[in-house]
Amino acid sequence: MGRRFDTVSFLSDYGHADEFVGVVHSVIRTIAPHTVVVDLVHDLPPFDVRAGSLALSRAVQYVAPGIVLAIVDPGVGTGRRAIAVEVGDDGEGVLIGPDNGLLAPAAQLCGGVTRAVELTNPEYQLQAPGPTFAGRDVFAPAAAHLALGVPLVELGDEVDPFGLRPSLIPLSRADGGSIVAEVLWVDRFGNCQLNVDPEDVARLGDVVGVRAGDEPRRSARRVDTYGDLSTGQIGLLVDSYGLVAIAADRTSAADILGIQAGSEVRLEALD
Amino acid sequence: MGRRFDTVSFLSDYGHADEFVGVVHSVIRTIAPHTVVVDLVHDLPPFDVRAGSLALSRAVQYVAPGIVLAIVDPGVGTGRRAIAVEVGDDGEGVLIGPDNGLLAPAAQLCGGVTRAVELTNPEYQLQAPGPTFAGRDVFAPAAAHLALGVPLVELGDEVDPFGLRPSLIPLSRADGGSIVAEVLWVDRFGNCQLNVDPEDVARLGDVVGVRAGDEPRRSARRVDTYGDLSTGQIGLLVDSYGLVAIAADRTSAADILGIQAGSEVRLEALD
Amino acid sequence: MGRRFDTVSFLSDYGHADEFVGVVHSVIRTIAPHTVVVDLVHDLPPFDVRAGSLALSRAVQYVAPGIVLAIVDPGVGTGRRAIAVEVGDDGEGVLIGPDNGLLAPAAQLCGGVTRAVELTNPEYQLQAPGPTFAGRDVFAPAAAHLALGVPLVELGDEVDPFGLRPSLIPLSRADGGSIVAEVLWVDRFGNCQLNVDPEDVARLGDVVGVRAGDEPRRSARRVDTYGDLSTGQIGLLVDSYGLVAIAADRTSAADILGIQAGSEVRLEALD
Repeated sequence: MGRRFDTVSFLSDYGHADEFVGVVHSVIRTIAPHTVVVDLVHDLPPFDVRAGSLALSRAVQYVAPGIVLAIVDPGVGTGRRAIAVEVGDDGEGVLIGPDNGLLAPAAQLCGGVTRAVELTNPEYQLQAPGPTFAGRDVFAPAAAHLALGVPLVELGDEVDPFGLRPSLIPLSRADGGSIVAEVLWVDRFGNCQLNVDPEDVARLGDVVGVRAGDEPRRSARRVDTYGDLSTGQIGLLVDSYGLVAIAADRTSAADILGIQAGSEVRLEALD
Repeated sequence: MGRRFDTVSFLSDYGHADEFVGVVHSVIRTIAPHTVVVDLVHDLPPFDVRAGSLALSRAVQYVAPGIVLAIVDPGVGTGRRAIAVEVGDDGEGVLIGPDNGLLAPAAQLCGGVTRAVELTNPEYQLQAPGPTFAGRDVFAPAAAHLALGVPLVELGDEVDPFGLRPSLIPLSRADGGSIVAEVLWVDRFGNCQLNVDPEDVARLGDVVGVRAGDEPRRSARRVDTYGDLSTGQIGLLVDSYGLVAIAADRTSAADILGIQAGSEVRLEALD
Repeated sequence: MGRRFDTVSFLSDYGHADEFVGVVHSVIRTIAPHTVVVDLVHDLPPFDVRAGSLALSRAVQYVAPGIVLAIVDPGVGTGRRAIAVEVGDDGEGVLIGPDNGLLAPAAQLCGGVTRAVELTNPEYQLQAPGPTFAGRDVFAPAAAHLALGVPLVELGDEVDPFGLRPSLIPLSRADGGSIVAEVLWVDRFGNCQLNVDPEDVARLGDVVGVRAGDEPRRSARRVDTYGDLSTGQIGLLVDSYGLVAIAADRTSAADILGIQAGSEVRLEALD
């Protein structure tokens, strides 16, 4: 047998209005009752592979050792592959999901893919009347059987790790003295995480110009925390993942600036 | 003692804005700490017994062996009975909830009710200042004590299984050559499940006319999966529960058609 | 070693759109895998310490023995203290959270604080690039280490329980023959819990006048349960926490009256 796992960390765009998440839990518990399923997040925007891959990247360094099950799967039922990949030096973790780029950044953060299989073995799947709920019929059974100790290669055909779909995460770029960035994530509190490293923004000074859309340029102070900002002011801080975020104190910086995940933001030196 | 259970699968219309779900978990964990509570769904529309009974029907064949706790209970505090019913050939599962039709379709899918009690025994209830949170005070303690091995008949008076409130699930009907159906469920992705079997719609041809409300008739192709549809097109597919659903690719068929759960939809042959 | 705990009951304003809740679960499971985390509620209004302290007060008498982790923390990263407090006669429970009044009413309901520490010991924290996710970096590790049996006083410097921030819960007041009350909580079903004891309202008669905002006075019958009300009627009942609530049958009393949490409501005798 392979390694036995105790934890499945589960992320999806299934939301909470339907029983999708609960049925995935149920399938795992029925097959592998010893397993604890930890819900990472399920209210990702429907079909948003990019948002899912970013959330998974943020969470993955904190998940309990074991299996990660990630499902944002607009191509369900089409030719896209369902995969399970071993990551880390000794394959100590497994990521399961569709091969659409969702898993790629997290796999990279875990040290890269050491082995990959396509989930083709029907013995480890549920029979289903229709192909549209792969979470229940393909992914959850795969996670549960791995948790029981079924070796990865039993789940299907090995595939080339270098043939997997790459990440969709954008990089910021320099444009003259300014930085053209993208909002990676707006969290519940309205903080806007940018694809910008703190060192890069430090060169722009203590107060930085922020342009978003057609709005006039705003000034943002570089601060350590929310409490350093006064009401209505926006600032730039290093967020809890080490990236630059636009923030405000007890209110939504995203609302103030009218921006959302995917918006372009330009940071520039004030003179 | 009776049979000991390890899992309570829990469905309700309690939502996530309040602590109702958490308090039910807490009561069960306090009484029966060995029990794992699996949340099926809690964001059902408030008071919507029909939506709850449909979600439970979809989920029940996948739940882990043990107890199902289902609470959509507009009649809480009135004369409606609180019940627990054994289902299956050897009573291997128990469903707990209000006797308002919520449990009926799931009980039928599990092979029918073999024994039923009304939850009248105050020894297995929490004392409460008011009668409005039966989930906490009546249903959760019943589930927890059953999980510990308390026999069903200890929880209250036996009642006649044939006297329980029946299901509210509607059937579709033929009208000339067409099918008058009802939307059972619109899921988060906008797929519209109909109360129609695939064989019935097959007789209407490869492309089927769909009428909803006063809108002009639309054409829907019968397809195997979302990916077979082009942008803006609607189709009919066999969904993951074996029923016909109206679907679109990466967008909401419900929005395209302006329909919701409970809407009438007419399927007809095109000539 | 100190006492070992098995349960962490977790309340926050983190919502479900982001992975915050899941990461807190992950951190606890990584450090203390034997611990079960029970989610009380996470969709509290962002930054709303008052709503959080009320939800915690309602839930705390039902939580499983062990640790309560409560995070509504608008002052994160500022001078506000992160604390853990022992409550009850023999310190049998521990509450963890920011020292901003959030924990105060629950602590009082548990018999008062017997010992308190500020979470200053970096050995029991995660290293973090930024100070804004204290749930992950400070509070969750504290809960997990306590669960493992680390003594409270290892987590940081003892502080004076009498120096902790007090509760923010308002009291109702008499004004002539009437009661000036505040809506403590509007639940998902639209029931409006008031800071009023049943005995006080009993003096006003069987039918009571209710004034909210500039709306004309309405009559509310004192009833035992929702089912005693006819459609469109509002009533006063003793809710499941023993307080007076304004309610309606299968519809939202809050919508009928146009009120929300924090609204002032005046109850008066009709003549």
